[in-house]
Amino acid sequence: MRAQHIRAIVYGVGEMGRITTRLLVDKGVRIVGAIGNRNNIGRDLGEVAGLGRSLGVPIDNDAERVLSSSAADVVLMSFCSDMETMFPAACRCIENGMNVVSITDESFYPWGLFSRRASELDRLARRHGVTVTGTGIQDLIWLNLVSTLSAVCHKIDSVSGEASANIDEFGPAAATSAGLGLTPAAFETRFAETRQPPTPFGVALQGLVADLGLTLSGSRQRVVPILAARDTPSVALQRVIREGEVIGTSHVDEVETVEGPLFSGAFHVKVYEPGETDHCRWQIEGFPNATVVIPAMPGKIGTCTIAVNRVPDVINAAPGFVPAQELPRIKYRPYPLHAYVRAGISCEATG
Amino acid sequence: MRAQHIRAIVYGVGEMGRITTRLLVDKGVRIVGAIGNRNNIGRDLGEVAGLGRSLGVPIDNDAERVLSSSAADVVLMSFCSDMETMFPAACRCIENGMNVVSITDESFYPWGLFSRRASELDRLARRHGVTVTGTGIQDLIWLNLVSTLSAVCHKIDSVSGEASANIDEFGPAAATSAGLGLTPAAFETRFAETRQPPTPFGVALQGLVADLGLTLSGSRQRVVPILAARDTPSVALQRVIREGEVIGTSHVDEVETVEGPLFSGAFHVKVYEPGETDHCRWQIEGFPNATVVIPAMPGKIGTCTIAVNRVPDVINAAPGFVPAQELPRIKYRPYPLHAYVRAGISCEATG
Repeated sequence: MRAQHIRAIVYGVGEMGRITTRLLVDKGVRIVGAIGNRNNIGRDLGEVAGLGRSLGVPIDNDAERVLSSSAADVVLMSFCSDMETMFPAACRCIENGMNVVSITDESFYPWGLFSRRASELDRLARRHGVTVTGTGIQDLIWLNLVSTLSAVCHKIDSVSGEASANIDEFGPAAATSAGLGLTPAAFETRFAETRQPPTPFGVALQGLVADLGLTLSGSRQRVVPILAARDTPSVALQRVIREGEVIGTSHVDEVETVEGPLFSGAFHVKVYEPGETDHCRWQIEGFPNATVVIPAMPGKIGTCTIAVNRVPDVINAAPGFVPAQELPRIKYRPYPLHAYVRAGISCEATG
Repeated sequence: MRAQHIRAIVYGVGEMGRITTRLLVDKGVRIVGAIGNRNNIGRDLGEVAGLGRSLGVPIDNDAERVLSSSAADVVLMSFCSDMETMFPAACRCIENGMNVVSITDESFYPWGLFSRRASELDRLARRHGVTVTGTGIQDLIWLNLVSTLSAVCHKIDSVSGEASANIDEFGPAAATSAGLGLTPAAFETRFAETRQPPTPFGVALQGLVADLGLTLSGSRQRVVPILAARDTPSVALQRVIREGEVIGTSHVDEVETVEGPLFSGAFHVKVYEPGETDHCRWQIEGFPNATVVIPAMPGKIGTCTIAVNRVPDVINAAPGFVPAQELPRIKYRPYPLHAYVRAGISCEATG
C-alpha cells in the first residue's frame, strides 16, 4: 500500500470517459488531465462528467500538451475502438512515462490480429518502464469467466460462447449498416461479398486461447442474419421490421487450436423483443461439460467499472504490453485504488 | 517446466479417491502410494479405481507406512470432510515432506472457524517447506466464480448465493437426519433446539470475504424446511413425501463484514422433482448489479477435477496453509501436470 493517490488522465470524455471519470473520483483517484475534442474544450471535466462540481481540470483537445504538462501514473483511454487509432495516442502516453488502461476493443488481445502494433507498443512500453493493457467487459465475460469455469474440466473438446446487444440502442447508422430490415436474399447479396473483419469477440477468443495455454492454428469469421419471428418495431430503423426480414445479425468467430479444442463465439446484434436482455452464455464440451450464464450484463457500465478496477493491476504489472490474461485475477476493489498499488512501483511522469 | 513426473499418494480410495486416481493418471502423475481402509487392503489401486490395469500400487491402511516409505510430491486427501479428522493425517503428510491437496470441506477456508488447527498446520507446513490447501467444487462455484463476477462492481452492498443438491442420492441415513417427511411442526421441534454447525457454504463464504479483501465481523447459520408442493416419491426415504411435508432443507449462512457488504449462501438439500439439477446462482447487489448462474453443476466429478487441476498451484505455492483464494487463478490444465510445476521447487520426500 502507498499513501499517495493515483494520478490519472482521462483520454476521451465521451459517454465512457465520463462514467470512468465518476468512478475514478469515487475510488480516490486524482484526475490531473482530460483530453477531449472540439465540443468540450475549456469546460471542466467534473462538470462534463456530471459530478456536480468542478475538478479543476479543463478539457483540452491537445493531447501532447496535456500529457507533457501533467504528471500522471496512468491514462484511461476510451476514445477509439481500433488499434490503428489507439497506436499514436498510446505511444504519446508511454513516451510521457504513463501506464495505459485502454477500452479499445482491438487492444484486448492484439497479439494475434494486430501483432505489429502490439509489438511496437510492447517495445516502447518496456523502454519507458510502463504497462499498456486493453480491458473492458470482455475481461470478465469473454475471458476470466470462461477461464474460471474451465477449471472444472479435465478435458476440453470445445468452448462456445454467445452474447447479445440491442442494436436499437446504437442509432440509425448502425441499424442500416447491419442490414436491418433487409430480406434474407438482399442480406445474402450484400454480405456474401464482404470480407468480415475480426469482431471484439474474435479478439477476445484469441486471448482466451492464450490464457488456457493453447496455441492458435486458425480463425475465421462469418455473419449470419437473424430473421424476425414476428413483426417487431425498431426505434433505430424507425419502422416495423416485418416477420421474415432481417432483425439482426450474428457475428460468428471460430478459432482452432493446435492442441485440438475448438473455440467459437457468436455475438448477436439485434433489435430486442420484449424481455430480451444483454446476456452471455458459455458452454464447454468436454469432461465434464460445463455451462455458465450471465443473464443480464451491464455492458457499458461494466466496461468502465472493470477498466477502473484494473488500474492497480496495470500500474503493478511488469513493463510492456501486458494483455489482461497475464494480469492477476480480476476482482472488486472495495478500497480507494491506491491501496492496491504495491509500494515502490509508482511511476512518476516525466513532464 | 520440469521433465520429471509429479509423484502422488492418494489418501482415501472411496468414490472421490477413485475418480481422482483416474484423473491423475491421465494427466501424467505417477501414483506411488494409496491409503485406504480395511475393505481394500492389498488390492491394486489401478484395479480398484477402475483403470482396467494394475498401477503396481497396493492399497494399505497403514498411513504412516505408506507416507514414510514412498517419495511423493503431493498427497491427494479425500477420506474426510472435517478438520479434526483431517488434522493428524495432514500432519503425517507434512512431516514426511509432502504437499497436501485436500477436498475436506472444512479445510477450504479454515481460518475463521477452525483457526487453531489451521494455524498448527500452517506452522508445521512452513517448517517442512510444504503447502496444504483445501479445494473442490467450491473453489469454482463458491469462490472464484463470484470473485470474478465481482470485478464488474464498483460498489457492493450484498452478495447472495444459492446452490442445491439432491438428497435422494445420499442414502436413507442422510434423508432421515435431514428431517425429510416430517410435518413442518415436527421439523420445527426437532431443529429449533439444534445448534447448526457451519456448512461447507458458510466456510466458503468466509473465504470469499477474505478474497475480496473484506473483514469478517459476524456469521450465523439457520436451517429452513422446504415443503413439498406436491406428492413426490423419495428413493432415500422409500416412500412418497406428501404435499406439505418436508422435502428438503435450506441451510442458510450469513456473514457480515466490517466494511458493510453482507454475504449469504443458501444450500438447498432436497429431493429433486423432475427437471431439477444441481445448480448454483449468485446475485450481487451494488453498482452495477450482477448475476451469474451455473445451471447444471457436476459436483462430485468437479471436486475431483478441480483438486487435480490445483495440484501444480499447491506444489508451486509458498510453504504453509495456503487457502485457495491465495493461489493463482484456477483454470484448466491441457497438458500433463508436471508441465505446470516451476523448476526448482520440486519437494523431494524424506522417506
